[in-house]
Amino acid sequence: MQTFTINSALDMHLHLRDEEMLKLVAPLTSKTFAAALIMPNLVPPVTTKEALLGYKERIKEACKKDDFEPKMTLFFKNDYSYEFLKDIKDEIIALKLYPAGITTNSETGVSSMDVESLRPTLESMSKLNIPLCIHGETNGFVMDREKEFMPIYESIASSFPDLKIIMEHITTKDAVKLLDKYENLYATVTLHHLLITLDDLAGGMLKPHLFCKPIAKRPEDRSALLEAALNAHPKLMFGSDSAPHPKHKKECCGCAAGVFTSPIALQVLTELFDKNNKLENLNSFISLNAQRIYNFKAKEKAIKLVKKEFIVPDAYRYNEEIVVPMFAGQSLSWSIEE
Amino acid sequence: MQTFTINSALDMHLHLRDEEMLKLVAPLTSKTFAAALIMPNLVPPVTTKEALLGYKERIKEACKKDDFEPKMTLFFKNDYSYEFLKDIKDEIIALKLYPAGITTNSETGVSSMDVESLRPTLESMSKLNIPLCIHGETNGFVMDREKEFMPIYESIASSFPDLKIIMEHITTKDAVKLLDKYENLYATVTLHHLLITLDDLAGGMLKPHLFCKPIAKRPEDRSALLEAALNAHPKLMFGSDSAPHPKHKKECCGCAAGVFTSPIALQVLTELFDKNNKLENLNSFISLNAQRIYNFKAKEKAIKLVKKEFIVPDAYRYNEEIVVPMFAGQSLSWSIEE
Repeated sequence: MQTFTINSALDMHLHLRDEEMLKLVAPLTSKTFAAALIMPNLVPPVTTKEALLGYKERIKEACKKDDFEPKMTLFFKNDYSYEFLKDIKDEIIALKLYPAGITTNSETGVSSMDVESLRPTLESMSKLNIPLCIHGETNGFVMDREKEFMPIYESIASSFPDLKIIMEHITTKDAVKLLDKYENLYATVTLHHLLITLDDLAGGMLKPHLFCKPIAKRPEDRSALLEAALNAHPKLMFGSDSAPHPKHKKECCGCAAGVFTSPIALQVLTELFDKNNKLENLNSFISLNAQRIYNFKAKEKAIKLVKKEFIVPDAYRYNEEIVVPMFAGQSLSWSIEE
Repeated sequence: MQTFTINSALDMHLHLRDEEMLKLVAPLTSKTFAAALIMPNLVPPVTTKEALLGYKERIKEACKKDDFEPKMTLFFKNDYSYEFLKDIKDEIIALKLYPAGITTNSETGVSSMDVESLRPTLESMSKLNIPLCIHGETNGFVMDREKEFMPIYESIASSFPDLKIIMEHITTKDAVKLLDKYENLYATVTLHHLLITLDDLAGGMLKPHLFCKPIAKRPEDRSALLEAALNAHPKLMFGSDSAPHPKHKKECCGCAAGVFTSPIALQVLTELFDKNNKLENLNSFISLNAQRIYNFKAKEKAIKLVKKEFIVPDAYRYNEEIVVPMFAGQSLSWSIEE
């Protein structure tokens, strides 16, 4: 039987939430991933060292695994002092910037993306060599939000040439193109944006479980993302943006955005890279690129996949919490060797 | 208090379904409309005189009103004989053509939109002066489906210059433009496509009750539709495409397409035209244009609206059937005088 080994899988964009939901989803990542970059958009967001260390502790406890490392991020604010950032630097891998109100729990994000208003914090980050992760969307028409954000990426990238900037969960060919224009621009891409377009959400029946922000775009966008991922574009990393929302908030009359992929990501990525005869690039996409870009050495953690059918569970549960994964109830052609 | 009277409101694109659902929704149209063009996409579709007359009878019974006239349509097939169409002509207002599989209950629609394969039926219709209503979408990317259909409209319109062709539920600026290019092209537009874009479905939370086919498009498309409607473009008619789906099929993990607007259409249209200072055009848009285009005289039916708050019910029920209307639970500024 065909097998493939993924070494030190890294999820460079992950939502673990808190409390019961954290306890449900954290082990589903720590089972197969060696580390993950943890998003700070809790309620309230993670903006202090105390909150950060407390959250890290709760994550570790929920994981019950020593071979998983949560890489913490701080919620971007304009007015962090240099001293504060210097003090917290060793505890974090990056700051995450949200334009206010653009996605789940981002209400306290920045209200202006004008470089001058961001400058105080960005200058400190640049000096301290702390990377900046950005949710890059305007509040324009839903299909244009990422494209409209490109000039803002360009403005920050050129104003702070020593700052590493990661365009999070890119969804368009425009963003792929921008990677090659600025040396200090990088990106993550999700599993679902490699697989779906708006057609999958709304072309047939409406599929709330495929509703995400940024919204899945056009076929030519998916092609550009897929090509970059399959060829292990050196500036592109895997970041699942796996976002657990309770089942009842996905199947209702005003559904939350987010696709839950953590427990199936490795299987689906292996299937995708195998189908395209690019398995040799998967470890770069899912681990080596991120280690080089963020400049850290991941712990050893080998996960062996076998080409054997895996039926995705209908849901994952913990007490009252129920989360429905992507491909719920469907058959995948690769599974994790237990 | 400000009032406005709508005379002989016509809904030139309506789904009434059958059985319990018919009994629920038919009275919600017949209460305020003088007539409606009834879509034939039942299961099985309406393709015989017997089925047509039986359905018409059930509709009349469900309405319990003498001042409402169902205008029946026949489901388009390539192989209707001239004699059959001649015989049924007085019972119908039009034939409705669906590309196979393009929307609810369209599985037995035409598999090719090639003019030559449609010719036999279209020639008879042209001779007999029977209008053709078309659901004009390709099976391409969901945002492009109507635009991609434009060459097909052009091809039919130029091949059959004596055939009246109605582009149903148009959603794009391209379709509005096409109206002025061919004398024999007309269109209906829904209430919801005058009000929403893809942003309303998926720009914030996902709103299954705003999910429709064709999908709501871009802001510039809505603007073009709204401008044509408000100015009572002489080739544009109101057709609600009000489509009742049971509540449980709208709030689930694979939701049906369709917005239910019948019971609120007059109030919302009056609000919309009033807000834009175009009330003087509303009777043309909602009645006179259709009478001229389809060449019939509607029965007198005056509906008086008053500028007084109306809270839209959360749902409409009949036995086990529950349908959620657009603007459920929300406040409108015009109501129907009881």
